[in-house]
Amino acid sequence: MWSLPASDVVLYGLSLVALTAQAMTAALAAGKRSMDWAGVCMLGCITALGGGTIRDVLLGHYPLVWVQHPSYLLLTAGAALATILIARVVHRLNTAFLVLDAIGLVVFTMAGCDVAWQIDPSLPLVIVVVAGMITGCAGGVLRDILCNDVPLLFRAELYASVSIVTGLFYSTGFGLKLNDELWTALTFVLGLSFRLLAIRYKWEMPKFVFDENRR
Amino acid sequence: MWSLPASDVVLYGLSLVALTAQAMTAALAAGKRSMDWAGVCMLGCITALGGGTIRDVLLGHYPLVWVQHPSYLLLTAGAALATILIARVVHRLNTAFLVLDAIGLVVFTMAGCDVAWQIDPSLPLVIVVVAGMITGCAGGVLRDILCNDVPLLFRAELYASVSIVTGLFYSTGFGLKLNDELWTALTFVLGLSFRLLAIRYKWEMPKFVFDENRR
Amino acid sequence: MWSLPASDVVLYGLSLVALTAQAMTAALAAGKRSMDWAGVCMLGCITALGGGTIRDVLLGHYPLVWVQHPSYLLLTAGAALATILIARVVHRLNTAFLVLDAIGLVVFTMAGCDVAWQIDPSLPLVIVVVAGMITGCAGGVLRDILCNDVPLLFRAELYASVSIVTGLFYSTGFGLKLNDELWTALTFVLGLSFRLLAIRYKWEMPKFVFDENRR
Repeated sequence: MWSLPASDVVLYGLSLVALTAQAMTAALAAGKRSMDWAGVCMLGCITALGGGTIRDVLLGHYPLVWVQHPSYLLLTAGAALATILIARVVHRLNTAFLVLDAIGLVVFTMAGCDVAWQIDPSLPLVIVVVAGMITGCAGGVLRDILCNDVPLLFRAELYASVSIVTGLFYSTGFGLKLNDELWTALTFVLGLSFRLLAIRYKWEMPKFVFDENRR
Repeated sequence: MWSLPASDVVLYGLSLVALTAQAMTAALAAGKRSMDWAGVCMLGCITALGGGTIRDVLLGHYPLVWVQHPSYLLLTAGAALATILIARVVHRLNTAFLVLDAIGLVVFTMAGCDVAWQIDPSLPLVIVVVAGMITGCAGGVLRDILCNDVPLLFRAELYASVSIVTGLFYSTGFGLKLNDELWTALTFVLGLSFRLLAIRYKWEMPKFVFDENRR
Repeated sequence: MWSLPASDVVLYGLSLVALTAQAMTAALAAGKRSMDWAGVCMLGCITALGGGTIRDVLLGHYPLVWVQHPSYLLLTAGAALATILIARVVHRLNTAFLVLDAIGLVVFTMAGCDVAWQIDPSLPLVIVVVAGMITGCAGGVLRDILCNDVPLLFRAELYASVSIVTGLFYSTGFGLKLNDELWTALTFVLGLSFRLLAIRYKWEMPKFVFDENRR
């Protein structure tokens, strides 16, 4: 989803795992719509790589990462295909995938902030945080649009909010010129804990329910 | 949605009002789908700023306006959030919002044409008009896609048509090197009247109804 | 959908026919949703030109073809409008339109590969094939999203697969420095035959059906 210096091997490894996990859960969503194998592959790629793609298109940051590293396409398409064989296993490992997805959310958010800084170090904080949020969340929105659902992101769960908090915390630290590696680790732990606690205790944003006929 | 010279203070003010109004009506649409507060904010931003964003991405015009002026994001997100508190009021002021939305349609259309000229003064008339129409109309299409509806734009009302007529009239005048400010004012009055008359008298395009089983 | 050297007159002519055919079938889809005339025009343009547009936005290849050649917009909008008058005829000529659409799929795929090479001759094979597939297939995905359907591309028919096979065959030949014109003709015949046989004998990809409640 982005290029990291060689030292960030841990984050890079986590992001590969997260890409795989997102492609696999997208494949399950495809299976619920009875898509064919080609559709499963495409939905896996679009979901896993769509967030970074939308961020780069909006920021005018070319070439896109998957154009530069086509192996990401092969990885996510392969993961989606493999899911067809092991759908039962993936479904049963639901909790494991929620954790992997949470890791992805946090890692992609940090990566999105990094890319925004790389493009222009003078970008305002709001845009850096939004770039992180788009990277972390927009893939799932594309998946839901293609599955003909109202995006889950807009309806439930602390997902975008976790991404925003993570991005804000991450960006603030770098603005204060704190120790990079320590701050990265701290952000990762904070964001992941927030997301997992939100899942565990079913924290939700209040909903805005508007019924035009009720008075 | 674009940058105006300081003299165009009136148009600029109107466009801020229109951005706010579009974010607020999008928030009501979010409420009808029971989205949570984060979803309401996001739908407000995407609807109000989406038209200009799509135009700029299609024309390769970077940086996007909201990247350069993040205050637009805060304005539209704030307007959407405020709508949660005053949903009843917004709903009752339906007519006022139709007028504000009509002002937005006309002002955004003119702004879209302006941006197309700024990018390349030799762009053909068709593209200038299309750039105006995308700026005025595409935000609502994104809103309907995210709410899982067939876009209202394609089904009903003289909305795109008002935008096209406004853009054609506006562009023709500038092609003829008429007085800029007079022509802008004239276009605004014409476009707004057309849209309001269309609402008042329920003018509609003929529909194309095709039923493959009927013979 | 792209610019061809003058010698490729046959391909260019075929692509115009295919653009027209895609706009016309999109207009029928619009009619099934009772869209108004403006909506029919817009859906025709978006379906016929959307694949090339998405490809160019993803590859950062500006200006877009329809910005450079607005006559494509007029052609597709006109074809969509004409369909309103002759809907019965278009519907009855279903088989003819399937053939025209298949020609479009193959021609657009080859054109997409060509554009990818023009942008950067060192692009990896995967990206060239993906660029071809997006050009051939993404317009129909946009059409289905705007009609509020799960994209047909993901659910049925050998459509994306034909595009991938065509792109692979086409790219391999050029990698091997074979005779250009011969190879283009050969690819065209192969891709078209594959697609028509797939329609005739109802070849389909296996589907991935996942029901989370079944055990």
